[in-house]
Amino acid sequence: MNAERAHLVDAVLQRFFSLSKKRATPLGAHYEHLWGLLERNTQGGKRFRPRMVMGAYAGLGGTDMDAAAYVGAAFELLHTALIVHDDVIDRDFVRRGIPNISGAYRDSAVDRGVATDIAEHRGVSAAIIAGDLALFNAYRLIDKSGVGSPLRERIVEVLDEAMFASAAGELIDVDFSIDPGMPLVDDILTMERLKTAVYSFETPLQAGAILAEADEEVVTTLGDFGREIGIAYQVVDDVLGVFGEEEATGKTTIGDLREGKRTVMIAFASSTPAWSRLGELIGHADLTLAQADEARDLLVQCGARAFADDLARSYAQRALTRLAEPCIPQRLRAELHPVAETVLDRVR
Amino acid sequence: MNAERAHLVDAVLQRFFSLSKKRATPLGAHYEHLWGLLERNTQGGKRFRPRMVMGAYAGLGGTDMDAAAYVGAAFELLHTALIVHDDVIDRDFVRRGIPNISGAYRDSAVDRGVATDIAEHRGVSAAIIAGDLALFNAYRLIDKSGVGSPLRERIVEVLDEAMFASAAGELIDVDFSIDPGMPLVDDILTMERLKTAVYSFETPLQAGAILAEADEEVVTTLGDFGREIGIAYQVVDDVLGVFGEEEATGKTTIGDLREGKRTVMIAFASSTPAWSRLGELIGHADLTLAQADEARDLLVQCGARAFADDLARSYAQRALTRLAEPCIPQRLRAELHPVAETVLDRVR
Repeated sequence: MNAERAHLVDAVLQRFFSLSKKRATPLGAHYEHLWGLLERNTQGGKRFRPRMVMGAYAGLGGTDMDAAAYVGAAFELLHTALIVHDDVIDRDFVRRGIPNISGAYRDSAVDRGVATDIAEHRGVSAAIIAGDLALFNAYRLIDKSGVGSPLRERIVEVLDEAMFASAAGELIDVDFSIDPGMPLVDDILTMERLKTAVYSFETPLQAGAILAEADEEVVTTLGDFGREIGIAYQVVDDVLGVFGEEEATGKTTIGDLREGKRTVMIAFASSTPAWSRLGELIGHADLTLAQADEARDLLVQCGARAFADDLARSYAQRALTRLAEPCIPQRLRAELHPVAETVLDRVR
Repeated sequence: MNAERAHLVDAVLQRFFSLSKKRATPLGAHYEHLWGLLERNTQGGKRFRPRMVMGAYAGLGGTDMDAAAYVGAAFELLHTALIVHDDVIDRDFVRRGIPNISGAYRDSAVDRGVATDIAEHRGVSAAIIAGDLALFNAYRLIDKSGVGSPLRERIVEVLDEAMFASAAGELIDVDFSIDPGMPLVDDILTMERLKTAVYSFETPLQAGAILAEADEEVVTTLGDFGREIGIAYQVVDDVLGVFGEEEATGKTTIGDLREGKRTVMIAFASSTPAWSRLGELIGHADLTLAQADEARDLLVQCGARAFADDLARSYAQRALTRLAEPCIPQRLRAELHPVAETVLDRVR
């Protein structure tokens, strides 16, 4: 069923990109190429946000899965925009092992003999433009969904809320990255909720419910479920970023340690005796594999890993409680249970 | 009359920012501050794009100037987004003599003891986020205009076209800035049209005409007028960027020479004997005032300045011809004549 839904979303995005590339052709070969890179950036994902939209919609009895696919694709395009610009902010030229938009442009400029620093800046510039295009077109996909007033306006409000929160979270994250102090666990959770959970869980679920013309109570409860499970996901994500299996997550498990990324585990560890050594180890780009192992051992020994696992488990449990509320129909519960179970599986 | 219209647009933007800052408050003091900086970036402008929307609308008999102000404000916000990100791409920290968003964030981080390179990156990151917010909200202002279907959809299509063209132009400009070769005059005109003229002239005029429910012929003719006068404006702008009076334009007249900016004048000069010296002079950040004077003399002597003036004049004349077409009512002609006259005044 998930595959069927993902297929519908893929079809929406394919039509959108095919049309955009056709429009871009008369404006220059590089522009068409940029659209192609942007399209590649939307491919191969798990269509996570569209699955939230479509799961909520179908679970509430919605039957126009094409319309739901458009709304889901809008969230997917917002996601693309946010990660493309996030990579610019993080100065990343690679994502999941392959060059991202900045990286692809940089590499092709270097191949043509351009100096690396200029080529990098060109890559970053192209990525800013590409992210802008994805961002601007997220709304357009809702317009193209065929959903009429007043549902359209309400869904657009929710997409607006998603972007509004994510920008706030990104700004807090930028502050963390330059602030020499250690943020509190709660501040990290707030940042992660705003930056990622709101647009990945809370708002796509609400958009699906609104599209299904659900009662306000259901929309609110789904938002609550999304908030709890979204925070749980982010905490688990940070744990996997250090302890995960690279093959399963597609991410290195050394990057976050080298970056000294502020996570719940690190904030917890910073208030334990392990920090005197751990604080020395992390945050260095040349952290060795052996040092990374030492850092992992310290995170386990000081209780940081168990703390994060417990925290994720408790948020996931609270999310399940929301699903048990009487306003949630059985079919919707069945749709969303697996989302919470995935988190619980990872911290069992 | 222009002042009255600008006032309406100011009121729309003020309401929008006041609401956004209120929404931002619970998400962090820095976020509210970022919204304040973004607001400051929209103030003090000439409300050029809204004036195009409102001039076309009023000239075609439109009477709901509040709705026109919302549509105008949408173009103004798009403009803000584009210049904020353009500054990131150009690595500018100052605009019109005062720190832009990147500059303001950099300076406050430096004041708190952050190293300059990290502070600059923080400034750039904040500017990327701020530009995203402006971009995402441009559509929202059209939604808030109260304009219903199917006019709303048509106006949104035009705003989409504005962004689509501008991104293409920005990408070509990035290519110019790293390409060691000299672009052709026609390629420079295409870049300038796409990057700026489409969203500043063609599409705001068309949006105003659509809002006034004008005939398709009028919408097309206004687009043609906008294209011609928009190109003329850009050519004049480049001339003033080297020969203008700084007090009148608010821009330095040495920046473009130091940057070695590819303009119609420079492309023309590159095919004349003056280039052997001129090509040595420009494109160096340490160009002196005396060297800038020498470069200006060379641009005059080789005929580049006269070529650009002639080109601007001829585009402005062609624009006037469009206004003379029978489908354009006298009142609209009266609205738009001054726009063309401004260009002609500058090259007389």
